[in-house]
Amino acid sequence: MAKNAFYAQSGGVTSVINASACGVIETARANAGKIGTVYAGRNGIIGALTEDLIDTSKESDADIAALRHTPSGAFGSCRYKMKSLEDNRREYERLIEVFKAHDIGYFFYNGGGDSADTCHKVSQISESLSFPIQAIHVPKTVDNDLPITDNCPGFGSVAKYIAVSTREASFDVNSMALTSTKVFVLEVMGRHAGWIAAAGGLAADADNDIPVIIIFPEVPFEQEKFLAAVKAKVDSHGYCTVVVSEGAHWQDGTFLADQGTRDAFGHAQLGGAAPVVANMVKDAHGYKFHWAVADYLQRAARHLASKTDVDQAYALGKAGVEMALAGENAIMPTVVRTSDDPYTWEIGKAPLADVANVEKMMPKEFISEDGFGITEACRKYLLPLIGGEDYPPYKDGMPVFVTLKNVAVDKKLPEFKM
Amino acid sequence: MAKNAFYAQSGGVTSVINASACGVIETARANAGKIGTVYAGRNGIIGALTEDLIDTSKESDADIAALRHTPSGAFGSCRYKMKSLEDNRREYERLIEVFKAHDIGYFFYNGGGDSADTCHKVSQISESLSFPIQAIHVPKTVDNDLPITDNCPGFGSVAKYIAVSTREASFDVNSMALTSTKVFVLEVMGRHAGWIAAAGGLAADADNDIPVIIIFPEVPFEQEKFLAAVKAKVDSHGYCTVVVSEGAHWQDGTFLADQGTRDAFGHAQLGGAAPVVANMVKDAHGYKFHWAVADYLQRAARHLASKTDVDQAYALGKAGVEMALAGENAIMPTVVRTSDDPYTWEIGKAPLADVANVEKMMPKEFISEDGFGITEACRKYLLPLIGGEDYPPYKDGMPVFVTLKNVAVDKKLPEFKM
Repeated sequence: MAKNAFYAQSGGVTSVINASACGVIETARANAGKIGTVYAGRNGIIGALTEDLIDTSKESDADIAALRHTPSGAFGSCRYKMKSLEDNRREYERLIEVFKAHDIGYFFYNGGGDSADTCHKVSQISESLSFPIQAIHVPKTVDNDLPITDNCPGFGSVAKYIAVSTREASFDVNSMALTSTKVFVLEVMGRHAGWIAAAGGLAADADNDIPVIIIFPEVPFEQEKFLAAVKAKVDSHGYCTVVVSEGAHWQDGTFLADQGTRDAFGHAQLGGAAPVVANMVKDAHGYKFHWAVADYLQRAARHLASKTDVDQAYALGKAGVEMALAGENAIMPTVVRTSDDPYTWEIGKAPLADVANVEKMMPKEFISEDGFGITEACRKYLLPLIGGEDYPPYKDGMPVFVTLKNVAVDKKLPEFKM
Repeated sequence: MAKNAFYAQSGGVTSVINASACGVIETARANAGKIGTVYAGRNGIIGALTEDLIDTSKESDADIAALRHTPSGAFGSCRYKMKSLEDNRREYERLIEVFKAHDIGYFFYNGGGDSADTCHKVSQISESLSFPIQAIHVPKTVDNDLPITDNCPGFGSVAKYIAVSTREASFDVNSMALTSTKVFVLEVMGRHAGWIAAAGGLAADADNDIPVIIIFPEVPFEQEKFLAAVKAKVDSHGYCTVVVSEGAHWQDGTFLADQGTRDAFGHAQLGGAAPVVANMVKDAHGYKFHWAVADYLQRAARHLASKTDVDQAYALGKAGVEMALAGENAIMPTVVRTSDDPYTWEIGKAPLADVANVEKMMPKEFISEDGFGITEACRKYLLPLIGGEDYPPYKDGMPVFVTLKNVAVDKKLPEFKM
């Protein structure tokens, strides 16, 4: 009898994580003899701990196919970081009990660095508990900070959204700068790595002379230097667009905007760097300003997804199942870039031991010498990732997203207090 | 000899104002024997006052056609309100001098309420100065607050952007609400009228049970009632999406967020209602929150334009020229709705005397009884305006917008000090 599979979404959702889910489930369905039912965790790994499983076999083929163009996490995701084996062995043992109760032999965990770590530990403990689970991590994170893989699904679409929005808003500001706004500040996501902020640099190119200044989290903020750069752009172009990362910080590490709150992983919850920067410019130069904070709009913007990103998200989900069926364990399928232009890629794989808890920062050579822009090397890396459009279907002017039935599987175990 | 035309863009630009410019210029070109060169004002009416005219005949047909999918104001716009005839007759006389020097017999002014007023006055004074100008106002404003016309070009596309973004972000929040953000606040434009905020209500429909609370500028803010409404939504759905208008205000008229600055028209420059509302919810209920401020992203978002909006923007520009050639004066072409479902419309016209300085508010029957939602009547009005997609062309993952050459016309008059 073929073993069942468990699939869960972890951490911040994206506009294409459901495309990976689609890849996992469709590929499992295509291999019905070799793999049983795909159970999904309701609200991510919490669903596994509480034995709150969703039976994806109750969903129609059409609804599963529609996941490919539906943003968010269709089964629910969560911010819940499992502690180390030493500190909370109980939770890992519970996972194995649940997997055993439902005859689950495959664990597909779709997330970022923290979930790669969890995935790795599940694989390790399952062996020591004599119920071996093949644990496959399917990469996902708009932060693009996982190592080894060329990029992370979710990032390309956010990058496209930020690049396009920065170009559009810059056209807007340029046309009114004489009497109105001269400096527009757009705050984007990216706590530690400036990948998303870098995408703002794509707004300008050989055909679009747009003055963009980027404030990266990799470059400690120097106020005087920044203000001089803004003035130079306004002098030369009449206006300036500033793209500031939420993770932008001062020399001493203090974020330009720190709301003082922490999420479940202990990360600072940020927001509000844009008004800080905008007011700073106003105070120094008197320029009229506007600012925007894209926040969730950027990572949920399925209406402007990158086709490359959607294709890769799906392919990585599919590859995860294929690798599991080929007997792989404790690995993450990756995107391997084989050419920049034309962009070509293939699927590779990385051992989870090499992925877990490693954060990929922007290479130094991707940031221009003045610290406020991207280099040609960065452009060459980024541009293929936003390539192609993949529009969702529309009805009456609105995108049609699927909401699954998410039927619960009967519980077989006693309740578990988290 | 056919008279030349003058075209200018006024006030805040939109993602489709250039589609109106395209309609004006293409229609003038198609009537080459009857109408001469279309001169555009560089930076709007300031270009006319300073005799800084752009010769649009220097632009290729392909570039003029590309205006249809290019956001922003291709010739520059401005926030410059001409005073009354009594207070500043000199400026009106200067306009007529410039028009006379360049043999301009047609004035197409593309803007909102203030520019309708200016357009009307130009028509009046030109007659008294014995150099009759046919003054046609082409409507444009994302605020949708011009009277008589069914809607205003620019609004439909902003409405689509806000409706789609609200749906996308709501899917995102819904999938993580158990352990993360429970309340998402999106701030949208609309100083006095809640048309744009109302569009957030379209995120929910029969197929999408999304808990949206709208804070309209038409409804004085009642904190306790609002906080209770948020709690009810979180209790029933696990999360809540709040769409707040930048013009939201307390009973005494104070805006929820007033930056204390004024624009050239004396309007308060707003921004920052979202964090105020989000923190209010956090303080009262302890819910984790996120907030976004769409600002210029919403009005520049040509990538998500409504096809209906683009078609109407073009048609109104075209109609403006046709009406001028038919001898009309001091009028504004309008959209006349002839059916809701299926949506059908035709071009009508309104005398400028009836348009100038009249602000169209949301009808009371468009706001639900509790003050936080839209009614079926409102939905019936809004839905056709966001109908259809009209994607710009893309190259290497980025939208291709046109930047015109904007060749200056030789000056014939002495300098004019503004």
